[in-house]
Amino acid sequence: MNEFELIARLTRSLPTDPSVVLGAGDDCAAVDLGVPDRWVLFKTDAVVEGVHFTSDIDPARVGHKALARCLSDFAAMAGTPTHAVVTVGLPGDSRAEFVEAAYEGLTRLAERYSVAVVGGETTRNPEHVFLSISAIGTVRKDRCVRRSGAEPGDALFVTGALGGSIAGKHLDFEPRLEEAQWLAGSFDVHAMIDLSDGLAGDLQHITRASQVGADLLKSAIPISRAARLLARASANGDTAVAGLPKRPPPAIVAALTDGEDFELLFTVASRDAVPLLDAWKKKFPKLPLGCIGKISAEPGVRLRDEHGIRTLTEHGFVHFA
Amino acid sequence: MNEFELIARLTRSLPTDPSVVLGAGDDCAAVDLGVPDRWVLFKTDAVVEGVHFTSDIDPARVGHKALARCLSDFAAMAGTPTHAVVTVGLPGDSRAEFVEAAYEGLTRLAERYSVAVVGGETTRNPEHVFLSISAIGTVRKDRCVRRSGAEPGDALFVTGALGGSIAGKHLDFEPRLEEAQWLAGSFDVHAMIDLSDGLAGDLQHITRASQVGADLLKSAIPISRAARLLARASANGDTAVAGLPKRPPPAIVAALTDGEDFELLFTVASRDAVPLLDAWKKKFPKLPLGCIGKISAEPGVRLRDEHGIRTLTEHGFVHFA
Repeated sequence: MNEFELIARLTRSLPTDPSVVLGAGDDCAAVDLGVPDRWVLFKTDAVVEGVHFTSDIDPARVGHKALARCLSDFAAMAGTPTHAVVTVGLPGDSRAEFVEAAYEGLTRLAERYSVAVVGGETTRNPEHVFLSISAIGTVRKDRCVRRSGAEPGDALFVTGALGGSIAGKHLDFEPRLEEAQWLAGSFDVHAMIDLSDGLAGDLQHITRASQVGADLLKSAIPISRAARLLARASANGDTAVAGLPKRPPPAIVAALTDGEDFELLFTVASRDAVPLLDAWKKKFPKLPLGCIGKISAEPGVRLRDEHGIRTLTEHGFVHFA
Repeated sequence: MNEFELIARLTRSLPTDPSVVLGAGDDCAAVDLGVPDRWVLFKTDAVVEGVHFTSDIDPARVGHKALARCLSDFAAMAGTPTHAVVTVGLPGDSRAEFVEAAYEGLTRLAERYSVAVVGGETTRNPEHVFLSISAIGTVRKDRCVRRSGAEPGDALFVTGALGGSIAGKHLDFEPRLEEAQWLAGSFDVHAMIDLSDGLAGDLQHITRASQVGADLLKSAIPISRAARLLARASANGDTAVAGLPKRPPPAIVAALTDGEDFELLFTVASRDAVPLLDAWKKKFPKLPLGCIGKISAEPGVRLRDEHGIRTLTEHGFVHFA
């Protein structure tokens, strides 16, 4: 049983009520607490030593990552995070300094996005530090973007360049909050997700939720410099670089399946594609935006290249793999 | 550095803003998200295998405890929890059934209090299961009870009977949500807290936040049957009972310092004391309510018995002790 299967079993019959707009199964939960014109978004996430970071990592980067993962989920719904609480699991007093330094990275990021940190709990966790973060925020009801709104014919976009985040980006990425809020305010975004499990897997979260399929154009998929360098190192037999996987995949596979890119994947009506690209270049000249394919009525995700069309079976990074 | 010292250091300079009504330092955070007449409450908590429960415990009780701890903090502010999210740390697939059963206990409690469970994350945690739960809810602005409102002359009340929760209550307790909401709706409750660290320690959270002191009447402190049985077992030299501490303290010390009673400790003006006791007996005939002392202008917490007055130095259960 992998993570997705376990979550599916756990969330089969959770208690719900009419205030729940979106429960388990989207990037954040959305609930109606009576805020005029807005839903309240709610998200929890955790990073664990030995799983999401190694003990030798600068703790400020760990704190940054812990909160940034959570904020990235608010970006995926075009929401605005406002408040966060933190639960720290601490193996012993000797790690208290690690946690204090992690808080520094966390609070720096929180300040940048005006997220107030309104509480914390500390508990003991034998042997490993964990940081569990929950955040709330709001989103205008008419601008909340779900995973389930993709329509056949939609153009499919991704921000940034993909793959190889293990080389560092997974610790230092910036949640795409500003970009997502601008997108939802400027265009009719049909569906959106943040890339945490890898393009191939996360795209299938959109296509399943929307009951559609997708066709990717291989040559349009933006491959990160890190993914190319890792692939080249692999080809050269250089497998001894600390922290790198022993057999890095070819760069395109990395771009399709590596986890923790934390870029935005979204769809808009095809007629919006060119105006969007033009407006984006003016608004965010430093961050590439690429049209990588289109949504189709036919279920499944397919990859097209010069040799033909293949159905994509790779699923994204599975935490339990 | 114990848990309280670490939290004090971590929360020294957290980012905040005018929407924060109460940040770290009360039972829940309270924030203004624009809900008319209400604040949004926000709380996180976690239970960890080997710290808050042992591996042989019925997992449904573990799930109950995990959520009940969180809901008890909403009771302490007379709030209404509405939505919860859960992060599960799982040592491996072999514990998936444990987590599924824990969810059953958790969702049973959630249903009883109309709390919708709106999301979950699963991550790996080497060797130990952890359940980190966050909840949101609301409270009427004019009925939100803080720790900081106690006034000299107030009568001090506690629900239930204290001590010995290790014998079972720490897993099965009922959060005092109904009682707290009735209290805040019927009387002017000045200050309230739920007893998680022990009467002596939690009373000092109230007196420090309110910049007052307190005088306890030893004979008025309600001692639980479990605390008396543990003390008797200790006096008889019966130290081999599974799960019991090797040297249980005398029953009154247990009532003062044992953690995880999860009863309500609160203060009202002295003129409200008798009307409150009368109304309580009619409303909650099965749950004792006791007046155990009064708030004083003199700092510190004192215990009065037939031998005189002693300043209480015991502080509550410290998780890192």
